Amino acid sequence: MSRSDYRELGLAAVFVAAAALTHFLHVTPVVTFLVAAAAIALLARLVGSATEQLGGRVGASAAGVVQSGLGNLPELFISLFALHKGLVGVVQAALVGSIVANGVLVLGIAFLVGGLRNGTQTFDSAHARMIATLAALSAAILSMPTLAHTFHTPAATHGRTLSLICAGVLIVLFFVTLPSFLERRGDSEGEPPRWSLPVTVTVLGAAGIAAAFVSDWFVTALTPATHTLHMSQGFAGFVIVAIAGNAVENVVGVQLAARNRPDFAISVIVSSELQVALLLTPILVFVSLAFTTQLTLVFTPLLAIALLIGAAITALIVYDGESTWEEGAILIGLYIVIAASFWWGA
Amino acid sequence: MSRSDYRELGLAAVFVAAAALTHFLHVTPVVTFLVAAAAIALLARLVGSATEQLGGRVGASAAGVVQSGLGNLPELFISLFALHKGLVGVVQAALVGSIVANGVLVLGIAFLVGGLRNGTQTFDSAHARMIATLAALSAAILSMPTLAHTFHTPAATHGRTLSLICAGVLIVLFFVTLPSFLERRGDSEGEPPRWSLPVTVTVLGAAGIAAAFVSDWFVTALTPATHTLHMSQGFAGFVIVAIAGNAVENVVGVQLAARNRPDFAISVIVSSELQVALLLTPILVFVSLAFTTQLTLVFTPLLAIALLIGAAITALIVYDGESTWEEGAILIGLYIVIAASFWWGA
Amino acid sequence: MSRSDYRELGLAAVFVAAAALTHFLHVTPVVTFLVAAAAIALLARLVGSATEQLGGRVGASAAGVVQSGLGNLPELFISLFALHKGLVGVVQAALVGSIVANGVLVLGIAFLVGGLRNGTQTFDSAHARMIATLAALSAAILSMPTLAHTFHTPAATHGRTLSLICAGVLIVLFFVTLPSFLERRGDSEGEPPRWSLPVTVTVLGAAGIAAAFVSDWFVTALTPATHTLHMSQGFAGFVIVAIAGNAVENVVGVQLAARNRPDFAISVIVSSELQVALLLTPILVFVSLAFTTQLTLVFTPLLAIALLIGAAITALIVYDGESTWEEGAILIGLYIVIAASFWWGA
Repeated sequence: MSRSDYRELGLAAVFVAAAALTHFLHVTPVVTFLVAAAAIALLARLVGSATEQLGGRVGASAAGVVQSGLGNLPELFISLFALHKGLVGVVQAALVGSIVANGVLVLGIAFLVGGLRNGTQTFDSAHARMIATLAALSAAILSMPTLAHTFHTPAATHGRTLSLICAGVLIVLFFVTLPSFLERRGDSEGEPPRWSLPVTVTVLGAAGIAAAFVSDWFVTALTPATHTLHMSQGFAGFVIVAIAGNAVENVVGVQLAARNRPDFAISVIVSSELQVALLLTPILVFVSLAFTTQLTLVFTPLLAIALLIGAAITALIVYDGESTWEEGAILIGLYIVIAASFWWGA
Repeated sequence: MSRSDYRELGLAAVFVAAAALTHFLHVTPVVTFLVAAAAIALLARLVGSATEQLGGRVGASAAGVVQSGLGNLPELFISLFALHKGLVGVVQAALVGSIVANGVLVLGIAFLVGGLRNGTQTFDSAHARMIATLAALSAAILSMPTLAHTFHTPAATHGRTLSLICAGVLIVLFFVTLPSFLERRGDSEGEPPRWSLPVTVTVLGAAGIAAAFVSDWFVTALTPATHTLHMSQGFAGFVIVAIAGNAVENVVGVQLAARNRPDFAISVIVSSELQVALLLTPILVFVSLAFTTQLTLVFTPLLAIALLIGAAITALIVYDGESTWEEGAILIGLYIVIAASFWWGA
Repeated sequence: MSRSDYRELGLAAVFVAAAALTHFLHVTPVVTFLVAAAAIALLARLVGSATEQLGGRVGASAAGVVQSGLGNLPELFISLFALHKGLVGVVQAALVGSIVANGVLVLGIAFLVGGLRNGTQTFDSAHARMIATLAALSAAILSMPTLAHTFHTPAATHGRTLSLICAGVLIVLFFVTLPSFLERRGDSEGEPPRWSLPVTVTVLGAAGIAAAFVSDWFVTALTPATHTLHMSQGFAGFVIVAIAGNAVENVVGVQLAARNRPDFAISVIVSSELQVALLLTPILVFVSLAFTTQLTLVFTPLLAIALLIGAAITALIVYDGESTWEEGAILIGLYIVIAASFWWGA
């Protein structure tokens, strides 16, 4: 393990411990909420590094499967605990928020950093364009139950059935498109593993268990903290949970843009968006069938609108074939305005 | 006439006869409905083949005009009978459904079949991109009366006037853009006619008359059949009428994709979409002025949304410049979810 | 000064005088309204020419700043007088109307004229594509307060705060993107100034003062004139004010298309769209804080929809990389239908 690996591990451990302290010492929920959010972000990053190390060991294909499964682990835990507490709105906002955060905020930061360092960046890989198209298509699929419910036949039972159809279609599409992503991944990674297999597995296990605990504390603190902060639960899900649970993982994408590899950066960022839409979302819909509060894909209308606008903008940006730091700045501006729209409300 | 021509003729005749039997023997409406739908699909295909044969005889330009006029004959008949029975919602759903079925479902099948047979297909013809742009523009025009009615001034009289303005603009645009399509068509077809002129005219006449009768039986069975099947009239129009009356004609597009001619495939499929928007729709609006129930372009909001999402996705897909079978699969998934959204409701 | 310069000056003077006569002689408001609209359009064009002359004198960068500031002067005056009279709806419609008029109508006329004169025009400058992307992004930002208010939390106070956040983001983005536009402009213009500096400054001053007076008369006549014409105030803002105050300035864009310089034409037209979104709109929001009636960015839903559809179509059209006169015709058709949608209503 390198020094930066130790630093990553240590930082995550410190924040997990701090989150435990704030939780068990009954510190004011706002502090627990923020510390736990930071701890989750660091654990998400750690799980990412560990699955990457695994990649060098077990072959690219198997690692890809593992990464798809484990990469979304922290967000999965938060969502499950939140569903268990009946916070369906938070989970829905977090799912859409992850997609929009990747496609608008993280892409914007990548363009800003990449553009300031390297000037105008051009990218023309068919792969980047293809996954942007896939992301737009899956956003369209994901928004249909909400649109049908808002503008067509607003009955709870139809919404549930339509959500299940939608989730079924999405998970089928995940398995249909998985092989082409795995192939791709094989091409692009060649670094030898720095961690031994036992270390990797231990880190993964420990991070997973820690993520489960911290998620529980985070969700417990969420409702009182949002009350204190006068923040809507929609904002908490759309911004805080989404960024803590998913988008930080995308530091990698920003680093790739800084290193002037814009095609690869876009692939990484948009793929992560796709995983939330095609894998995490349908899994949560199906798993929630066993819960008393079920997750449907009937979101608030503004979530569906944010999803569609975000996906359309991402597609335009990627098709453009060129990025500048100004484009990055406007993307970040768009994210700020979208996020601010969710501050008020339920 | 070749053997496959005889098979096509025979199959259509059998289904027309079956539809007649089910209608006159008062078989349960569900059966009449389904058999008549199949008969209409086969007649639509037959009219397509016959006008193609005519193309070799009377010159490409004249054939183009004839095909524009006759290609939509079955859907025109169904729409007229349905309007006569006051089923405005079915006709509106069928018009939007034809556009979405071409731009999402048929394109998806073409990509799936083309991709599985030939691997990744690239297309870069300016023509394909131009008609995708035209299709997006006409979808935007077509959706305005609904959007204005839903979100601005919901008065029946304004909706009617705006529909007439819209229909006027669309038909002018049809004549404006027609010459460039005819020119194009002249380039691409060179097969000598297999049918003599009398045979062609006889087939066209017979198919036309049969289409008129079958459409009547189909529309008569529609309301009771949808009741029995617990299917909304919107779904019947959006899916069944649209596919029976229009999309089957597009088997040609799928065959072209299978033969690795993706540019031509996209042109055929999207042109067919354009004909519904620029010709069939305004004709029906104007003709319906003579009816007691008038057709306006004030759709249910979900129809306008499906139209806009469908057109945006088609444009993205065509601009992408590359198609894979995975993209085809996701397009089909999107169509399933959109179609399912219409199952419930009025 | 050349003969055409004198003609331009004289024509503007005649219409300003005519507007003054109709105003002070209390001619029926409809006439004052129309004459003043024409006078404003001519003054807008004159200010454009004068700032261009200034460009040759003070250097491209300074001229760019001046032009950004003065180019929108007539529309700024109309908006201020209208806000002062409490006509918030007119101002909102005029802002969105300017953006849509540039991106749909003026672009359509440019393609029509350019295509009829020069056949199919291709354009592939990264710059044209980049500003189309920026325009789509700023349209998305600008539509968020309306979408949040319509579909999320309809509270007046939130709408106001969100508008201020949005205006703040837009004006920051104006300054962020300004340098890259100024640089650009330096490349493309090389004509020596035909007017002496004193003449230029005098013309600018006189045109500015005249614009202020005519705007006052125009706004005074607006409410009674729209009543007489049975035209909604939304239509007056979206079509009349927008075209008079802003779009006529874009004759330049059409002339460039006619001279077969499509890349430059698109840049000019879409840049003008961007200036309204990134500069004029936030300035008005902030200035209106000092007024009794404040300008928010919570539009009627149809305005937000027109904005989004217009921006999406502009982006598609520019990405297409090719324009034909048929495309121009359809764009004009789309503008007619959008404009007609605003005829009725408040």
